[in-house]
Amino acid sequence: MRGNTFGKMLSITSFGESHGTALGVVVDGVPPGLKFNLKDLQSELDRRAPGNIEGTTARKEPDTAEVLSGVFEDQTLGTPICVIVKNTNQRSSDYEKIKEDHRPGHADKTTMLKYGIRDHRGGGRSSGRETLARVIGGYFAQLMMPQMKVRGWMTKLGPFESRDISKLDINGDYGPYSYPDKSKSDEIKNYLLDLKKNGESRGGQVRVMVQNCPMGLGEPSFDKLKADLAKAILSIGAVVAFSYGSGEEMAELDGSVVSKDSSHFGGMEGGITNGDPIVLNITFKPTSTVGDKAKEGRHDPCIIPRAIPVVESMIKLTIADHYLRQQAYAGFSK
Amino acid sequence: MRGNTFGKMLSITSFGESHGTALGVVVDGVPPGLKFNLKDLQSELDRRAPGNIEGTTARKEPDTAEVLSGVFEDQTLGTPICVIVKNTNQRSSDYEKIKEDHRPGHADKTTMLKYGIRDHRGGGRSSGRETLARVIGGYFAQLMMPQMKVRGWMTKLGPFESRDISKLDINGDYGPYSYPDKSKSDEIKNYLLDLKKNGESRGGQVRVMVQNCPMGLGEPSFDKLKADLAKAILSIGAVVAFSYGSGEEMAELDGSVVSKDSSHFGGMEGGITNGDPIVLNITFKPTSTVGDKAKEGRHDPCIIPRAIPVVESMIKLTIADHYLRQQAYAGFSK
Amino acid sequence: MRGNTFGKMLSITSFGESHGTALGVVVDGVPPGLKFNLKDLQSELDRRAPGNIEGTTARKEPDTAEVLSGVFEDQTLGTPICVIVKNTNQRSSDYEKIKEDHRPGHADKTTMLKYGIRDHRGGGRSSGRETLARVIGGYFAQLMMPQMKVRGWMTKLGPFESRDISKLDINGDYGPYSYPDKSKSDEIKNYLLDLKKNGESRGGQVRVMVQNCPMGLGEPSFDKLKADLAKAILSIGAVVAFSYGSGEEMAELDGSVVSKDSSHFGGMEGGITNGDPIVLNITFKPTSTVGDKAKEGRHDPCIIPRAIPVVESMIKLTIADHYLRQQAYAGFSK
Amino acid sequence: MRGNTFGKMLSITSFGESHGTALGVVVDGVPPGLKFNLKDLQSELDRRAPGNIEGTTARKEPDTAEVLSGVFEDQTLGTPICVIVKNTNQRSSDYEKIKEDHRPGHADKTTMLKYGIRDHRGGGRSSGRETLARVIGGYFAQLMMPQMKVRGWMTKLGPFESRDISKLDINGDYGPYSYPDKSKSDEIKNYLLDLKKNGESRGGQVRVMVQNCPMGLGEPSFDKLKADLAKAILSIGAVVAFSYGSGEEMAELDGSVVSKDSSHFGGMEGGITNGDPIVLNITFKPTSTVGDKAKEGRHDPCIIPRAIPVVESMIKLTIADHYLRQQAYAGFSK
Repeated sequence: MRGNTFGKMLSITSFGESHGTALGVVVDGVPPGLKFNLKDLQSELDRRAPGNIEGTTARKEPDTAEVLSGVFEDQTLGTPICVIVKNTNQRSSDYEKIKEDHRPGHADKTTMLKYGIRDHRGGGRSSGRETLARVIGGYFAQLMMPQMKVRGWMTKLGPFESRDISKLDINGDYGPYSYPDKSKSDEIKNYLLDLKKNGESRGGQVRVMVQNCPMGLGEPSFDKLKADLAKAILSIGAVVAFSYGSGEEMAELDGSVVSKDSSHFGGMEGGITNGDPIVLNITFKPTSTVGDKAKEGRHDPCIIPRAIPVVESMIKLTIADHYLRQQAYAGFSK
Repeated sequence: MRGNTFGKMLSITSFGESHGTALGVVVDGVPPGLKFNLKDLQSELDRRAPGNIEGTTARKEPDTAEVLSGVFEDQTLGTPICVIVKNTNQRSSDYEKIKEDHRPGHADKTTMLKYGIRDHRGGGRSSGRETLARVIGGYFAQLMMPQMKVRGWMTKLGPFESRDISKLDINGDYGPYSYPDKSKSDEIKNYLLDLKKNGESRGGQVRVMVQNCPMGLGEPSFDKLKADLAKAILSIGAVVAFSYGSGEEMAELDGSVVSKDSSHFGGMEGGITNGDPIVLNITFKPTSTVGDKAKEGRHDPCIIPRAIPVVESMIKLTIADHYLRQQAYAGFSK
Repeated sequence: MRGNTFGKMLSITSFGESHGTALGVVVDGVPPGLKFNLKDLQSELDRRAPGNIEGTTARKEPDTAEVLSGVFEDQTLGTPICVIVKNTNQRSSDYEKIKEDHRPGHADKTTMLKYGIRDHRGGGRSSGRETLARVIGGYFAQLMMPQMKVRGWMTKLGPFESRDISKLDINGDYGPYSYPDKSKSDEIKNYLLDLKKNGESRGGQVRVMVQNCPMGLGEPSFDKLKADLAKAILSIGAVVAFSYGSGEEMAELDGSVVSKDSSHFGGMEGGITNGDPIVLNITFKPTSTVGDKAKEGRHDPCIIPRAIPVVESMIKLTIADHYLRQQAYAGFSK
Repeated sequence: MRGNTFGKMLSITSFGESHGTALGVVVDGVPPGLKFNLKDLQSELDRRAPGNIEGTTARKEPDTAEVLSGVFEDQTLGTPICVIVKNTNQRSSDYEKIKEDHRPGHADKTTMLKYGIRDHRGGGRSSGRETLARVIGGYFAQLMMPQMKVRGWMTKLGPFESRDISKLDINGDYGPYSYPDKSKSDEIKNYLLDLKKNGESRGGQVRVMVQNCPMGLGEPSFDKLKADLAKAILSIGAVVAFSYGSGEEMAELDGSVVSKDSSHFGGMEGGITNGDPIVLNITFKPTSTVGDKAKEGRHDPCIIPRAIPVVESMIKLTIADHYLRQQAYAGFSK
């Protein structure tokens, strides 16, 4: 009820402050008997870990996953899986100095409004570090649905824009920035480094395609898949907009046009998957740290490259949860 | 779990098919001792009822609320409140004819994929009629928070566009279409009637402002208020996009610009209300019925005018739920 | 959250006051395509309805079920099923007289403590009438699990005691009092009539056997089947004790004895069904109304005969809920 | 949904296998700003830890609590609190030997029925070690309600029986066995040692008194406090019976007698607390390990002395959860 658990049949309960002892997650509802591979889990974590992508934060934090429960002899037990990541890079600094420092767009002020207390050494639960819980959860969701593929691309960043993802190879290599045109990787890197040099930051957009999602997922009336995906995506700190299919362009289109091409519906009709690829559009705000502080190495001028695995993970979790919900009724089918 | 209940502390459980005996809702979690007024509830229902706004459906259905429980001597009891609306306008028609008629963008096909059976006499649970449950819920949410004001405007429809709502009077009269410039009402009416004549339909956009929402609402990490609002809004059938504050424009703005003006954050930082007005942006797709069938009187060429009370209600329910969640801790404050 | 919903995958949301317009229930999570029969539902309701068993209340209230939603052409749709029962027998009486009348053992006083208001015309939500919602839910749970049989017997009432149910025919006819020795029916009737004449009341015990419950149901650690059954049974107003298998006798037995005969475990080990018949033991307190008021026809000197279908229904609902929860994983089995 | 989370507003999510890396718990919903003391938490854990009470298991396992999150500068943050206890005493033994060893009354067989896989090195999630999660949770629940006192006594064990707890000093010292007559401690110790020598085991009964519980707690209709307490208590592996107030004796009493003395109702009427002390009665089955294996030092001939803190903790958690649920409405009171 305090909002740290996501999902109904498949759930993640996230815990940990950015500057506390550890962050982690309890993943509950994973079926027994799935093959677990720690290296694969670690690879997923590394995609969002700091220090791995040029132009994002230079802070090095290894983010090593430790599995405390729920896995035995490389198989899931069907019991809750707790995975933690210890915090190693809490710099000793004069925390008192930043105690009253409420950064606009950050949760600093609202956390105080809400709780009357906060771990002022960092962002606490509102830090981007919390999202590693989601990536761990996403790994297990993917294990449950090996045939499904979820892939996100950065489709807009400053001058870079490439919005049509319908022809992209979902298994292709798009470089460190997941930009549809990989040949722009160097330009993007330089753009990010320039932002950083200037203490500036930027948001942008991400598009996600989901292939091989089972049909019939999504629960009317309130747990439509589009509704639960919206919640999943908006629960990510930096996200400010969500749409699916043709999204905001729908406001410009004639009904007669829309009805002729189901791709406008982005894979969901009535909030239920129809077998078409799912297409989601997500907008990020600029990171909140700007000015001199942003010039330090530890900050991200744009969070999108590191956020893409988080976005993908939240989508995987949402769909796998709905898959279990629907499977409960599979045995009753005529 | 089958998705017909929304909210945690304050919840609505919606039931009923569009062509069944009745639709209705159980509203649970309303505090005891609130003053109930059936006329006010009926007024809210009338805002979304068919037949009351020119240019929308001409179908007349009175949608009369009957309170079955939870109210005694005009006060809420704190017990579950069941309100039903009987269906009166199910035309006798050759339902077998439409049994296999799966309209694009409708839930007809996906309902069959999911359940293997459906009430083919109409949209069933996916009909817009289901939304009266939400409006009834919204009435009680508003009772709980008399100081809060939630108001939506149609900010885009075809050639009509007026996106800045920051200067509008939240208590003003904006005519039947809730368009910021009320003087355009006749033009909008004619535009809608033309659409209908041509069997065409249109989506558009709605902006909502919330004033006097308490600070500190929203639960990190997953039940951020923005996340729960996104889910609430996307659970409405025709909605395809949600954003808050500057929304998709955030992809175009410099972080240094954003950080100077908190209005970009739309009343929420870290997913928690900060005392600023909440601003939400919502995109509707065109209604799915087009062509000859849409020329009949019973269809809406644009659903927005009737959907605004639904949008407002979902927002009220979401905020009131979070209000209760936060109030549970009020007694512990130092 | 205000406690009017029971169950996770299969849930009932109960509403209605004893002297309001109607009582009812929303049953959600019933699979689509099950064959519905209104007469069968009504028969179940009639088992707990007042006026049908000599020696219980003489009040006649037909308790007619009306299905508002979720059923179409005699099949369940997979959508929420709302069934209501209108109150017809609210006697016009001087309610002001009983307004301040807080009966010991009743919820009158505690309802005021909790809500600060109550429908003083009767027991409100704490009336036994609320249990018709459970019996309706139980009907649908049974539809889901046609092979399973749940049967309760009154094994103790005053001088009548017959505790061993292991040899009873689960499909047999045991008369109106469900006493293992049907030949005692007349004696029991006279005992009850005597109680009534004297303004006295009695509790007693019920034993339940469940046959053909699937193995593997029950979720460690907290939602063990025995735990959820205990909650289900203790949620019935008049129940004061719950046990399973050898129950309180377990305090007297040697471990070496217990380990030799699995029937001591009542069908559940580790909180999970093991294929043995489930055996539950339930104790009811005496009904709270005693003295002159109890001598009127409208009161029950012992609630057990009418409570047995309620007990059975809560058990069916609990097991069917767990069945769905387990079925969600059936497709992953190796 | 897989049953590892208990509570709604205040919840614990338990994880860990008895022979895995660690066991632990995420406690969510604890108010911010409460004073935390690691020594007090450790003391509570030590009450159920093995090796501290003569006549119970001689296995020494320190069960050291490590707080990973949710506490900062000795205060709760209002964020999820993760506490883990590493497993240190997994003896290297020939686990293959016990792999197919399904002990009656244990969850071994039913775990295989349910999951098709288990951590056969020990009881896994069904081990008594899981209960340390509950004791940790209980510590935080007690922090929230400093005025409330929850105390359990062993009121029956073999020849020892002392059932009336109404006159006991809730703050008194009753020795290692929590027996109402402390002078019997040596006799009880010898009784337990004898059981062990003979490879025998025993169950027994526990009575609990709760003083200073707020009035008005418990949610009709399904989340009556008695119902949620029953679930809480039956979720403990070895518990087979639950009652409150006069419990099973209610089957023997006249209604006229019961109505004269509210102590029969054990502090709850209509499932809502009435201000009287809450009295609960709990029956444990004999521990399942008997015979030669039970003669080893690592087994408990009776689990009750170590289970009392677990019982107390589940009660504290249940009441604190209901307290938050009721507090949500405190601000609406007239």
